[in-house]
Amino acid sequence: MLFFAVSASIVPVYSQTQSEGPWWPNKLWGASDQSGGSNWITPEKVLKAFSLVKTGKIFELGHPYERGMPMPGQRSYNIFIPSFPTYAPSGKDKVVFNDEYVTAEIGQVGTQFDGPGHVGRLMRMKDGTTTNVFYNGFTEDKMRDPYGLQKLGVENVKPIITAAILIDLAAYKGVNTLPENYEITLADVRNALARQGMKESDIEPGDALLFNLGWWRFWPDKKTVEGKPAYGGRELIDWIISMKPCMIGSDASLDAGPEYMVHDKVILENGIFNLEFMNFESMQSGNQQYKFLFMFSPLRLKGATGSPGRPLAVF
Amino acid sequence: MLFFAVSASIVPVYSQTQSEGPWWPNKLWGASDQSGGSNWITPEKVLKAFSLVKTGKIFELGHPYERGMPMPGQRSYNIFIPSFPTYAPSGKDKVVFNDEYVTAEIGQVGTQFDGPGHVGRLMRMKDGTTTNVFYNGFTEDKMRDPYGLQKLGVENVKPIITAAILIDLAAYKGVNTLPENYEITLADVRNALARQGMKESDIEPGDALLFNLGWWRFWPDKKTVEGKPAYGGRELIDWIISMKPCMIGSDASLDAGPEYMVHDKVILENGIFNLEFMNFESMQSGNQQYKFLFMFSPLRLKGATGSPGRPLAVF
Amino acid sequence: MLFFAVSASIVPVYSQTQSEGPWWPNKLWGASDQSGGSNWITPEKVLKAFSLVKTGKIFELGHPYERGMPMPGQRSYNIFIPSFPTYAPSGKDKVVFNDEYVTAEIGQVGTQFDGPGHVGRLMRMKDGTTTNVFYNGFTEDKMRDPYGLQKLGVENVKPIITAAILIDLAAYKGVNTLPENYEITLADVRNALARQGMKESDIEPGDALLFNLGWWRFWPDKKTVEGKPAYGGRELIDWIISMKPCMIGSDASLDAGPEYMVHDKVILENGIFNLEFMNFESMQSGNQQYKFLFMFSPLRLKGATGSPGRPLAVF
Amino acid sequence: MLFFAVSASIVPVYSQTQSEGPWWPNKLWGASDQSGGSNWITPEKVLKAFSLVKTGKIFELGHPYERGMPMPGQRSYNIFIPSFPTYAPSGKDKVVFNDEYVTAEIGQVGTQFDGPGHVGRLMRMKDGTTTNVFYNGFTEDKMRDPYGLQKLGVENVKPIITAAILIDLAAYKGVNTLPENYEITLADVRNALARQGMKESDIEPGDALLFNLGWWRFWPDKKTVEGKPAYGGRELIDWIISMKPCMIGSDASLDAGPEYMVHDKVILENGIFNLEFMNFESMQSGNQQYKFLFMFSPLRLKGATGSPGRPLAVF
Repeated sequence: MLFFAVSASIVPVYSQTQSEGPWWPNKLWGASDQSGGSNWITPEKVLKAFSLVKTGKIFELGHPYERGMPMPGQRSYNIFIPSFPTYAPSGKDKVVFNDEYVTAEIGQVGTQFDGPGHVGRLMRMKDGTTTNVFYNGFTEDKMRDPYGLQKLGVENVKPIITAAILIDLAAYKGVNTLPENYEITLADVRNALARQGMKESDIEPGDALLFNLGWWRFWPDKKTVEGKPAYGGRELIDWIISMKPCMIGSDASLDAGPEYMVHDKVILENGIFNLEFMNFESMQSGNQQYKFLFMFSPLRLKGATGSPGRPLAVF
Repeated sequence: MLFFAVSASIVPVYSQTQSEGPWWPNKLWGASDQSGGSNWITPEKVLKAFSLVKTGKIFELGHPYERGMPMPGQRSYNIFIPSFPTYAPSGKDKVVFNDEYVTAEIGQVGTQFDGPGHVGRLMRMKDGTTTNVFYNGFTEDKMRDPYGLQKLGVENVKPIITAAILIDLAAYKGVNTLPENYEITLADVRNALARQGMKESDIEPGDALLFNLGWWRFWPDKKTVEGKPAYGGRELIDWIISMKPCMIGSDASLDAGPEYMVHDKVILENGIFNLEFMNFESMQSGNQQYKFLFMFSPLRLKGATGSPGRPLAVF
Repeated sequence: MLFFAVSASIVPVYSQTQSEGPWWPNKLWGASDQSGGSNWITPEKVLKAFSLVKTGKIFELGHPYERGMPMPGQRSYNIFIPSFPTYAPSGKDKVVFNDEYVTAEIGQVGTQFDGPGHVGRLMRMKDGTTTNVFYNGFTEDKMRDPYGLQKLGVENVKPIITAAILIDLAAYKGVNTLPENYEITLADVRNALARQGMKESDIEPGDALLFNLGWWRFWPDKKTVEGKPAYGGRELIDWIISMKPCMIGSDASLDAGPEYMVHDKVILENGIFNLEFMNFESMQSGNQQYKFLFMFSPLRLKGATGSPGRPLAVF
Repeated sequence: MLFFAVSASIVPVYSQTQSEGPWWPNKLWGASDQSGGSNWITPEKVLKAFSLVKTGKIFELGHPYERGMPMPGQRSYNIFIPSFPTYAPSGKDKVVFNDEYVTAEIGQVGTQFDGPGHVGRLMRMKDGTTTNVFYNGFTEDKMRDPYGLQKLGVENVKPIITAAILIDLAAYKGVNTLPENYEITLADVRNALARQGMKESDIEPGDALLFNLGWWRFWPDKKTVEGKPAYGGRELIDWIISMKPCMIGSDASLDAGPEYMVHDKVILENGIFNLEFMNFESMQSGNQQYKFLFMFSPLRLKGATGSPGRPLAVF
């Protein structure tokens, strides 16, 4: 049962106001920013990313969206073809047309991109009120609407064309899939980079950091959402933030409840976006690259909390 | 009222069978192809497209998706935020989460990409039966399903990274918007190209041909779907097909009922896809380019007839 | 734009707590009641209602539910037939089946019954917190859930089989439809009853009070929801409450913003339900009756705020 | 996978036309009838049903509708509360409102009433065409529409107020639940009636015949739709039809695939409706009655194939 419970006694007291708080205004992007890490994608960043391309070969890094795919909690995805064909024959050639109709938490199912309006924190404000605060200090009263977020909707995220660093943790550990409940350490990441012949200095601000846990192998089995994939610990989270990526991604979520520290620290506090349930099957070939052009642009769904998409790598 | 009416007497008789007919098997892509013009996007094509990039500046060529946007007929788009926040506070930091829930003909509203399963034709087959036939001869019995097309779903379309040729018809005519009901001629296109300092030989197979009618200026007014935008006549359609693009696009649909010749000839017969209701506002700046890197990848919505997306130009 | 704005300064201060407040616990039904006026429907009440039946003739008092019907604000109603038929031929007789798929604020469109969870009030509590309080003092924290109300869902409303008193205000005024923005007075009601040969003493606790404003004549034109129908003033509202009906109904809502006093006083404070947008066309015949068996049972939609239905009179 | 497959060779040949066929025009109700068995509900029938009422006690004979309830195949039921409250405080009393939003095959989930448009048969017509034919000979071309059936929508079913005969098969057999896959015989029914002190002559045309299989005990477990409940055999089906009820009901469907003879013969051929997944828990008390006032009125959902509802018995 999901319900809203206010318990004044256990809410930590801060001195935050609408204009200033523990993570706002955002030091990189300023008080009114709603675009977070996607601000890193300057023309220079784009050119630099394109310069990585050698062959022009495209690799899919996401899953298709379909009925029955694994989804957590009460989320659902339904698709219908209204009649068939939807539209009657028209004209001399008797042309017919089909529509589809989809009902879903469309930005929060399958390969899903968490936007700036997805994660908040219940906080006590200086004036004694309690409210939910989101990226860059945007508060509930400014955002809330039954028909789409008034602020921090995913339409504020700019296109992401950047260099991705693939950190192949599963390959580093020599397993198909990292063990369940495994807390990924910073040493794991550094060793994985080393195995790939890379250094931390290969990572530049505005890059995308992608983590292969091997969890994609379970898709589309229910284990994908019912199991407990490996996740990032506090040390790793701090390191991620220090690397200043525009976004992170993995074939799970990199996170674990009840603290959800990745969502809390990476997305909420820093506006670094998180692409979940990626698919690294295409990265299992022989001629592996670990730094490549990566592209993901969320749909401009006004007021949505996240977006589906088609993450691509180009070698 | 939309209903399915079979009238045997006015259905033209062909000698088509499941394996052979007026537009199938597809001469370029073969009998089993479901990917149409997206097959043009080879690594070489991608490299060539990237070589056009000089500054790395990104331009949006689509509209956001939102409640109340203009949609034809009975199509609809609804988005909700279930409660707010959707999920109760969790952990020490009392992290909360929002989902959105969307219900829509998601691939057929707003800036919409028509996939291979969208357009068919009611035909009399050699064996006397009447059925709907789609791209590359796929017939209703192989496709039909209440929960998503079994063949020719939009998930079959490969990512599109190519060179786009923008044919600015409105600028050529010296108007904000082409007149309603105006039939665009081949001469219009050639003259527009000339005005842009371009030749037909600048167009290569697998390119995207984008037509600016100036219709984007009406968005999001209802006129967008209730007016009668300029459209492509038969001569233009034949020329488009001869140019062998992977797809076409415009800020309307380039088509007109009841014949819907663009859908019928370009998409259905040739598997050249059509991106409708694009937005060329970003192309109105001074430093105009008319041949540029263009990227559009439909969502892999299994069994869908089309897809939303985020068409981008990079200069 | 609908957003949640807390403004501490203009919220009136009460001494209410979870267990006691201006309208709770409910004096008739007790502290834990979630069924409101439907509690009046005892076996005795049912027998008494049936005793009114003379001919067995049934009259429809609602509208059908259909695409395009007038709905306020952002509410919507969509219905689809997935393929046709939805299910393929089965068995020797090649039996086929159709489903429909509906997406709507199903309890808040068309002829709609407002349940106990529909109306609340933002209040300052004794402990200084501010929360939304509903019928019988149920508070937000006990009710709120993205997937259906945890308390006061419409499934708590018992079946309603009772005597209805039709108060034909339009006929009393000698008009087809009461004027827009007209405030209905208690004198209007008493005179209407008198015209009908009735007395206030004909009204018994647990009856349904139905008001004909003549607004049904506009259905399904948009004016139904865009116009300003006649509404009940404070005097009438107090009288309604004093009559102790189980519910009221009308061919509009009987209410007007921004105070929404009918919803506020009748439903919220007293648990007397409100059936809106009824249809009194069937009551326009010669052999009129004004006190008759009336039946309306909301669907047991767990966690819903209201319900569609099929209100019937039997003479 | 559900797909439409025409196989001319195994479709039996009839001499049927639009106006005449094996089950049309309907002998009781005429060629244009869309209301089927609900036509039995005359004023006389209603009066007779009311005369059965002795105590006025109401009994629920259906299940609530809720997320996670058992549903067959791909059907789904989702309910949301958009924000909470959906509407911001209004007026001096800061009145707030909640809506719900439901997406479902609303007439084909839970306690569901199959309307006249739900069941058809694929048939070869005299003119050689093949089409789906429904109750009273209505053909696909007259009904089909992506946005709701054009004929035989459930809105055509008149309110049902009648006498119900409860045939308690589980009690007769002395079990909680009839065995899975058990074919119910006519002898079973006759013996059950006898145990109840009833005769077939207690059944009058236009009654509702309700069958307790004890299957309600599994609700809401998935077994409800994944198990194989007892069903009516051919002999029973013929007897049901001979009794001329307005409808039948049970706590399962009384039917079994692939022949679906109940749907095929009872609903399709005779327009006798079928209420599935009823709940007979309230009928398990000591003071049992087996003939009682029964009321079920489908929602007037224009173009729907079925309807939810709130079936009630009154003793």
